[in-house]
Amino acid sequence: MAKITAVSPLAPSEFPELPVIQGVSFSAIAAGVRYAGRTDVMLAKCVAGTAIAGAFTRSATRSAPVLDCQEKLGGPSDAAAAILVNAGNSNAFTGRNGQEAVAAITSATAKACDVPESRVFTASTGVIGEPLPFERITKHLETLAGTLDPAAINDAARAIMTTDTFPKGAHAEITVDGKTVRIAGIAKGSGMIAPDMATMLVYIFTDARIGQDELQALVSASNEKTFNAITVDSDTSTSDSLVVAATGASGVDVTGNADFGSALHGVMMELAHLVVKDGEGATKFVEVSVTGAASERHAKIHALSIANSPLVKTAIAGEDPNWGRVVMAVGKSGAAADRDRLSIRFGDVVVAENGWVSPDYDEAKAASHMKEQNITIHVDIGIGDGNATVWTCDLTHGYIDINADYRS
Amino acid sequence: MAKITAVSPLAPSEFPELPVIQGVSFSAIAAGVRYAGRTDVMLAKCVAGTAIAGAFTRSATRSAPVLDCQEKLGGPSDAAAAILVNAGNSNAFTGRNGQEAVAAITSATAKACDVPESRVFTASTGVIGEPLPFERITKHLETLAGTLDPAAINDAARAIMTTDTFPKGAHAEITVDGKTVRIAGIAKGSGMIAPDMATMLVYIFTDARIGQDELQALVSASNEKTFNAITVDSDTSTSDSLVVAATGASGVDVTGNADFGSALHGVMMELAHLVVKDGEGATKFVEVSVTGAASERHAKIHALSIANSPLVKTAIAGEDPNWGRVVMAVGKSGAAADRDRLSIRFGDVVVAENGWVSPDYDEAKAASHMKEQNITIHVDIGIGDGNATVWTCDLTHGYIDINADYRS
Repeated sequence: MAKITAVSPLAPSEFPELPVIQGVSFSAIAAGVRYAGRTDVMLAKCVAGTAIAGAFTRSATRSAPVLDCQEKLGGPSDAAAAILVNAGNSNAFTGRNGQEAVAAITSATAKACDVPESRVFTASTGVIGEPLPFERITKHLETLAGTLDPAAINDAARAIMTTDTFPKGAHAEITVDGKTVRIAGIAKGSGMIAPDMATMLVYIFTDARIGQDELQALVSASNEKTFNAITVDSDTSTSDSLVVAATGASGVDVTGNADFGSALHGVMMELAHLVVKDGEGATKFVEVSVTGAASERHAKIHALSIANSPLVKTAIAGEDPNWGRVVMAVGKSGAAADRDRLSIRFGDVVVAENGWVSPDYDEAKAASHMKEQNITIHVDIGIGDGNATVWTCDLTHGYIDINADYRS
Repeated sequence: MAKITAVSPLAPSEFPELPVIQGVSFSAIAAGVRYAGRTDVMLAKCVAGTAIAGAFTRSATRSAPVLDCQEKLGGPSDAAAAILVNAGNSNAFTGRNGQEAVAAITSATAKACDVPESRVFTASTGVIGEPLPFERITKHLETLAGTLDPAAINDAARAIMTTDTFPKGAHAEITVDGKTVRIAGIAKGSGMIAPDMATMLVYIFTDARIGQDELQALVSASNEKTFNAITVDSDTSTSDSLVVAATGASGVDVTGNADFGSALHGVMMELAHLVVKDGEGATKFVEVSVTGAASERHAKIHALSIANSPLVKTAIAGEDPNWGRVVMAVGKSGAAADRDRLSIRFGDVVVAENGWVSPDYDEAKAASHMKEQNITIHVDIGIGDGNATVWTCDLTHGYIDINADYRS
């Protein structure tokens, strides 16, 4: 069950006012899949011609809805499309029942929305290994389809929450030849990851006109530097899903338009950061940037090793500029490093240079940076030109509280 | 500073009575390297002809003493040898000072013990990045060398502790042609290794006669299944060291003797388990065994993914038979898996078979197993014949308490 938790101290002060995206409408309902007294199913319907791109968990034990979405991506986009998401039950590791539930929900959604089944994308998030009571969802589909509203994206953002302590939204707009193109997205996720609760789901909509192939290329490239560059606890959900739908309803073609790519990237980055800011038990938002690695891949390995290290994360929780643990995390990562070329900064404070404490190191200044809510750790490996940045949160008693409790 | 911590609930009731190993003698002293009111330096001296084997951290940011030991291993063994270890300062990430400290300690030890410098093996454990005040050690070396005692291994076990809550020892003996061969070992380590505190150091002595090459082969093979099969928090020290010394003083040649290999393996395994049982904040000792993987390597990747997963470890702390998190950890590991062939057992309770909850699953029984102090998780991947077993502990508030405190 979702816990009644105080809102994360890293939460923004309010949910942003998301713009209406032409060509898509939303509805949500309290279907009682598992939770009581809250909405738990969302429907989004996109007009005919909407291009749909996506990215999904790399887990070898992916859930049935993820496998279904992956099969459908890249198909023809002339028909209308629908996205149906439930919270409370992830329909993961449910054997044959998993596919049956996806088929039943897909069929009911296709019928209610008058779209082909090949254009229905579903997702489920919540407890793992329990059969999804799909009739609780399918019986509401006519109502969901009958109450679609272009302005209801906020309701959708709330209906997909599980252990999230706040709903997550982000938006951007660009002007092309005097016309406005809008992008709005919602996300849920509060661990990277607890498969029984805290999967990350992201839905982004734009009224831009763009081909499916180009949209997919933009999404895949940005995904590596946004959603694949955040970590709460190194654990990976069996259900993580990102779907981006471009309705084309603005009439503005953004093919090859770099501004559109940047704006989409910005929305993805903002949503990714919001997921970290709702990390289970998080009290600090941490940016780890690595430069000077042997390659970009090596830089990301080092950065994730630092960001996933329980010793680094507990030191941050304790507001301790414990650079020794950063050295340790670089050393264990498996990527190339030379102990005597490492340099480390906490915020603007140079801690170590060329493998040893900086002669100018001022521990009081470093400790003062660690007291801030936004922490930056910069490591220069000193052997190449590979760079990467990742984001994480600290590891606190709150994480243990949330995750060491018996389900139920 | 080492914390004053209650003894781990997983600690054995007492330190074992370790046998005297012919050909080696020990001393310890309170040198005040960092700690006050306790011994913090140990010396062991082995007779001429002692074969010495070892295994060390794979960290790319290894400490100066580790690099020095690695260079010396495999050299001629006709002279006597000495092992000198200090606690309180790890001499890691200390630039040129690191090598100078090793050289000074090595020189003083060689002189006091009348052994060549090439036969002096040193180790340092404790805070990282601070110059080792090596004169505090070297000035005591004559005293250490003058008080060597074959029965003082217990004192050595205590002198190398840092955040350990109990000293660790294990022993074995075998009979060869009516003669007794003895093995005794000591270890310290209580995280997999906070580099500022909780490095793992292991010293094992035997009076068996065996060639250096064969001893090294035995140590390397067993190391993979013992010390390289335990994890507390997935973090890796820059100083982990295992040294095994065979004095030959029993006069019994164990070349090719399988019993000796088994006995040595047993001592290594027992010490490895004791390190996990002193894991920071540990309240449960957890065995994770994986069978049916594509290869032994794949099996170990799956097993370590489960054993290192914060979500699995917090579920164990919460006594929750949360098999969904085990599925998640298998899925994210990167090793081959087929969701619909997985089977999972907690203790003797079959939880999942062929990718779904077992028809006979009894959650009350599984929950009852989780309340025990020794937990076993067995996963059959169902696709091959690769097997591996690893050991870990749970992730508790105690871990956060110990590691989120400011150094001081």
